[in-house]
Amino acid sequence: MIKVGIIGATGYAGAEIVRLLLQHKNAEIVWYGSRSYIDQPFASVYRNYFQLVEDSCLDDNIQAMAEQVDVIFTATPQGLCASLVSEELLKKVKIVDLSADFRIKDPLKYETWYGIHHAAPSFLSEAVYGLPEMNRDTISKARIIANPGCYPTCSILTIAPLLKKGLIDPKTIIIDAKSGTSGAGRSAKTANLFCEVNENMKAYGVASHRHTPEIEDQLSIAAGEDILLSFTPHLVPMNRGILVTAYASLTDPSVTEEELRQVYEEAYKDEYFVRFLPKGALPETRWVEGSNFADVNIVLDKRTNRVVMMGAIDNLVKGAAGQAVQNMNLLFGLPENEGLTMPPLFP
Amino acid sequence: MIKVGIIGATGYAGAEIVRLLLQHKNAEIVWYGSRSYIDQPFASVYRNYFQLVEDSCLDDNIQAMAEQVDVIFTATPQGLCASLVSEELLKKVKIVDLSADFRIKDPLKYETWYGIHHAAPSFLSEAVYGLPEMNRDTISKARIIANPGCYPTCSILTIAPLLKKGLIDPKTIIIDAKSGTSGAGRSAKTANLFCEVNENMKAYGVASHRHTPEIEDQLSIAAGEDILLSFTPHLVPMNRGILVTAYASLTDPSVTEEELRQVYEEAYKDEYFVRFLPKGALPETRWVEGSNFADVNIVLDKRTNRVVMMGAIDNLVKGAAGQAVQNMNLLFGLPENEGLTMPPLFP
Amino acid sequence: MIKVGIIGATGYAGAEIVRLLLQHKNAEIVWYGSRSYIDQPFASVYRNYFQLVEDSCLDDNIQAMAEQVDVIFTATPQGLCASLVSEELLKKVKIVDLSADFRIKDPLKYETWYGIHHAAPSFLSEAVYGLPEMNRDTISKARIIANPGCYPTCSILTIAPLLKKGLIDPKTIIIDAKSGTSGAGRSAKTANLFCEVNENMKAYGVASHRHTPEIEDQLSIAAGEDILLSFTPHLVPMNRGILVTAYASLTDPSVTEEELRQVYEEAYKDEYFVRFLPKGALPETRWVEGSNFADVNIVLDKRTNRVVMMGAIDNLVKGAAGQAVQNMNLLFGLPENEGLTMPPLFP
Amino acid sequence: MIKVGIIGATGYAGAEIVRLLLQHKNAEIVWYGSRSYIDQPFASVYRNYFQLVEDSCLDDNIQAMAEQVDVIFTATPQGLCASLVSEELLKKVKIVDLSADFRIKDPLKYETWYGIHHAAPSFLSEAVYGLPEMNRDTISKARIIANPGCYPTCSILTIAPLLKKGLIDPKTIIIDAKSGTSGAGRSAKTANLFCEVNENMKAYGVASHRHTPEIEDQLSIAAGEDILLSFTPHLVPMNRGILVTAYASLTDPSVTEEELRQVYEEAYKDEYFVRFLPKGALPETRWVEGSNFADVNIVLDKRTNRVVMMGAIDNLVKGAAGQAVQNMNLLFGLPENEGLTMPPLFP
Repeated sequence: MIKVGIIGATGYAGAEIVRLLLQHKNAEIVWYGSRSYIDQPFASVYRNYFQLVEDSCLDDNIQAMAEQVDVIFTATPQGLCASLVSEELLKKVKIVDLSADFRIKDPLKYETWYGIHHAAPSFLSEAVYGLPEMNRDTISKARIIANPGCYPTCSILTIAPLLKKGLIDPKTIIIDAKSGTSGAGRSAKTANLFCEVNENMKAYGVASHRHTPEIEDQLSIAAGEDILLSFTPHLVPMNRGILVTAYASLTDPSVTEEELRQVYEEAYKDEYFVRFLPKGALPETRWVEGSNFADVNIVLDKRTNRVVMMGAIDNLVKGAAGQAVQNMNLLFGLPENEGLTMPPLFP
Repeated sequence: MIKVGIIGATGYAGAEIVRLLLQHKNAEIVWYGSRSYIDQPFASVYRNYFQLVEDSCLDDNIQAMAEQVDVIFTATPQGLCASLVSEELLKKVKIVDLSADFRIKDPLKYETWYGIHHAAPSFLSEAVYGLPEMNRDTISKARIIANPGCYPTCSILTIAPLLKKGLIDPKTIIIDAKSGTSGAGRSAKTANLFCEVNENMKAYGVASHRHTPEIEDQLSIAAGEDILLSFTPHLVPMNRGILVTAYASLTDPSVTEEELRQVYEEAYKDEYFVRFLPKGALPETRWVEGSNFADVNIVLDKRTNRVVMMGAIDNLVKGAAGQAVQNMNLLFGLPENEGLTMPPLFP
Repeated sequence: MIKVGIIGATGYAGAEIVRLLLQHKNAEIVWYGSRSYIDQPFASVYRNYFQLVEDSCLDDNIQAMAEQVDVIFTATPQGLCASLVSEELLKKVKIVDLSADFRIKDPLKYETWYGIHHAAPSFLSEAVYGLPEMNRDTISKARIIANPGCYPTCSILTIAPLLKKGLIDPKTIIIDAKSGTSGAGRSAKTANLFCEVNENMKAYGVASHRHTPEIEDQLSIAAGEDILLSFTPHLVPMNRGILVTAYASLTDPSVTEEELRQVYEEAYKDEYFVRFLPKGALPETRWVEGSNFADVNIVLDKRTNRVVMMGAIDNLVKGAAGQAVQNMNLLFGLPENEGLTMPPLFP
Repeated sequence: MIKVGIIGATGYAGAEIVRLLLQHKNAEIVWYGSRSYIDQPFASVYRNYFQLVEDSCLDDNIQAMAEQVDVIFTATPQGLCASLVSEELLKKVKIVDLSADFRIKDPLKYETWYGIHHAAPSFLSEAVYGLPEMNRDTISKARIIANPGCYPTCSILTIAPLLKKGLIDPKTIIIDAKSGTSGAGRSAKTANLFCEVNENMKAYGVASHRHTPEIEDQLSIAAGEDILLSFTPHLVPMNRGILVTAYASLTDPSVTEEELRQVYEEAYKDEYFVRFLPKGALPETRWVEGSNFADVNIVLDKRTNRVVMMGAIDNLVKGAAGQAVQNMNLLFGLPENEGLTMPPLFP
């Protein structure tokens, strides 16, 4: 039985790890870390776990935690994980970091976009970007997993196949993304009040959102060349879900939609969690809610020579906690979908 | 492995049975009955099941189905199940009827409230009202289960304990219930369009809702006397969830809240699915969403000598499909919560 | 032209006063008071007013304000208005207080329910409870208007007619109320975040909500005797709207629904803002959204000898800002519906 | 007083014309045409108009209507208006057509995208595209107004200024649009049920939506050259609102954001209904809900040399009924904003 510690267990992503691990045959949570709720029963903060979780929250003393657990999930704001990691720590536990600290290899780029000095640049090279569909083998041998951001997960799975094959022009990529409000976290901000979000739609972080360099880095790897792209996130009045609508021009106008579809079929034929939908069935967030699936499809627009690539995930599952558990499964040699086979919840 | 047939698999309740049985270790669905979608892949109607369900929908030929399955769930409008049931059929299969056909023992009362002639009154006496927390033993030996309505499930679990003990006056019971919109089903009606339900709150079926006699019958059994009560359902702009707020006067004004709480603690101490919450923690639908839990709590108002009893369930799970699976588990001697242990989904 | 000052202009109720007065022919706002946003353009806080309101927010110096305005709306938390009012002030301006400070005549009762010492009990007797449909004449001559709470407005308009006629038993009154989330205000609290309210339904303040004594006081006046009743508010995932479902037993079981309807027809036949709906058309919040209307209807349940009384208002309009403007119109001898004739917005 | 007839008064757009004209000083509706609700009180279909509209619905006999009215709004599906228009009719009344029949000048293009044979191509040349901000002068002299589609209105107002000045490359334009659900109309379809739309986000009509040629035609006029572009609409779980996020590459990389802003300031400085927002204040649908405003802003992304252009409207007002009334005002020489000055409703 894998013993698990969570730092930040009372955020939305942290609590989602709890939901998933309660259904996991080979893992048990022994440390619910939450600086804000120390000594309070976890189930008094998230009452859905009443009679399911008896533990109270503990502080986030990572050294003490490392003595008791096999793997630590850090579901905290940027900066914390980098400030805690050390060689000594990594000798005791695996770390799956849900923050951005180890996603971007270049510490200067990190500092530019996040406005934080990186506290542990020496560990950047060994950290593995935890997108199993791209890096399955290296993940399984890693000590630090940089669990991908929600927007990057959805964007990369949606776009990478065509890019790898050189079928789309990297300079023309535009990603227009839409997210449910749980992505904004559980801290009390006026902008995230019900009455402010409900009956509203807006873009935010235009040309400046921190997930941009992460997407560019990973798609650059896929393309084999450096990529700059446009990324615009939007806030949608729903709890969960990310929908990515991405646009790019074909490099060869004679390519058919069938040929493009073939690329995706091939890319994802062995992937349990990525579902390339039948022609005409567009991704919708409701079809993945609560699950670790990423649904993908494309439409070729011959008039404009552009392909419209669409992807949908649950931002808290495949975009955060589910992917973290998927990474944990790889780290410990378990079936990749252990604890992650619940079907999407609809309606 | 229990073989399952579903009549009405493409309604919301039917599709929810699918979701639950996909996570059930001892059951498999072999017949997805859906008159409207014959020969269409089930997963093309509910795309959340893409790559999880390969079957296509079949007609609702119950005789043919009975040759292949051990249990049939009828998730259809009133009248169908009663028109199909027969001694011959019941020799082959168990039936869990999610419609109202076998919930009300008196066929005249059924006809008065439902406006339908009852086609199989001879089976009314043997059918068992499938609320396991009340009728566990008889359920396990039954051939026909009358799976309770969503409002009755929540109302009975919320009110029955005090009634059984004679602590509240039956003549004063008022049930004000609020339901998410999935309770209205998936048929295309203007009144259920997004723009009609969103940003709206309304009562409906005032003094005439069909769940009234079902609640009265069951609470009459609990009280040991005939009860008439007021029941008012409301439509809420959310997908899932029923919240019941019930009011009744104490028979003995000297009773304390602590004594009332003791009654619930005792009534539900061995029930996995009924959670009597700590003092001050009121039931909310978000804490049970997607799960088979019923959360219950009370507040005693000394000023008015009334107790306010509150309960919350997911109308599609404990209010329909989850309870049906719970009943199936009892019918086949399985652990009552097999396939039903997923924690509630929040947010 | 009436000159208006608002204390608390950047709360939801304050901003709603702005919306209404921008459409008012005889009033203009000259002081947008907001302690939190001093010197910031009002339209930068509520961007819907961009290019419609040029003013910046000012402090809430009521003495300075009184020199410049004819009427002051205090849309602030409890306690502030009572702490500011004085004989000197009232010689200069009329005050419409949207807080609870002057709604309850008995300062001890106020202190019991609100937990605040009343700072100006000497003005309680002259303050007029600003429900025009009940107190039109005294309002027009008052200096201080205690603008009613949202729940009380809806409850009183729904219940008072039958109570005045002695047709229902005061001891049996139960009010089950449901409110949109704007009633919780604009301050940043976790409980009011989108993800916490959306897809949820809950009761709150059970047997302890502060609007209870206000409703009891006013209905006691209507009944001509002291009344204790049960009042339970609920939070609904929508922005605006209050729905009241109230229950009471008939004093005379032989009374017909037609006779009850006649009472409402008579009571509201000259009221512009109260619409007694046709038989069978139940109040819904969507039919009053954005307007100052209160829709009312009843159903008599002969089985239980109870009448179910229902009412719907927009909590920010008839439940707050609209009623405040209606009161202002009365104070200044204007047509009561001036500035308040916009139809409800649907969808 | 302008006498108005509406064909299709019981659709969402038709009912919104009613809302606006009830607040219009110079117009009155004398014919509520609705084939589905003949002889039923209009206020029984839209109960928000109870006691505000006394009329019953009439058939859609346009000849009889033309004898009684000065202007006819056709708020019906495609094809109807074209089938009814005639020289004789236009001698009696002005027509504001909210369908697509007269928006596209080329009948073959119309037939290609709409799949309907155009019944009145001879009137295409005289019909004026009713976007006042572009065609104010010709609108005022027209007999037939082709009232623009909701997506085109928002897209054109957002993009046209830079295109007219040659500052963006027409070949690079991508429009990603998001709409509330009222745009889908009031007919009963499963896809538009509350439970299907709520908690969901999806694209639809990808590379095939009928508003594409309308946007291309109008932007081609603005650019002075033929334009092909990508347009992708999305369905959002909210009632009202359209948000357009549009992308294009600068033709001259040395242009500054300040210069781009200057172009918008100049273009819209005299427009009451188009609000070019301050730098950093991005358009949100909540800030225009219920009003005829279009909010616009841009962000220049120097990294990619692309400008992100954003616009927000209420799809039922500036995107349909409000613009129709604005056009009527122009047709009859009234102030353009008569009846359209209500501030946006928030929350």
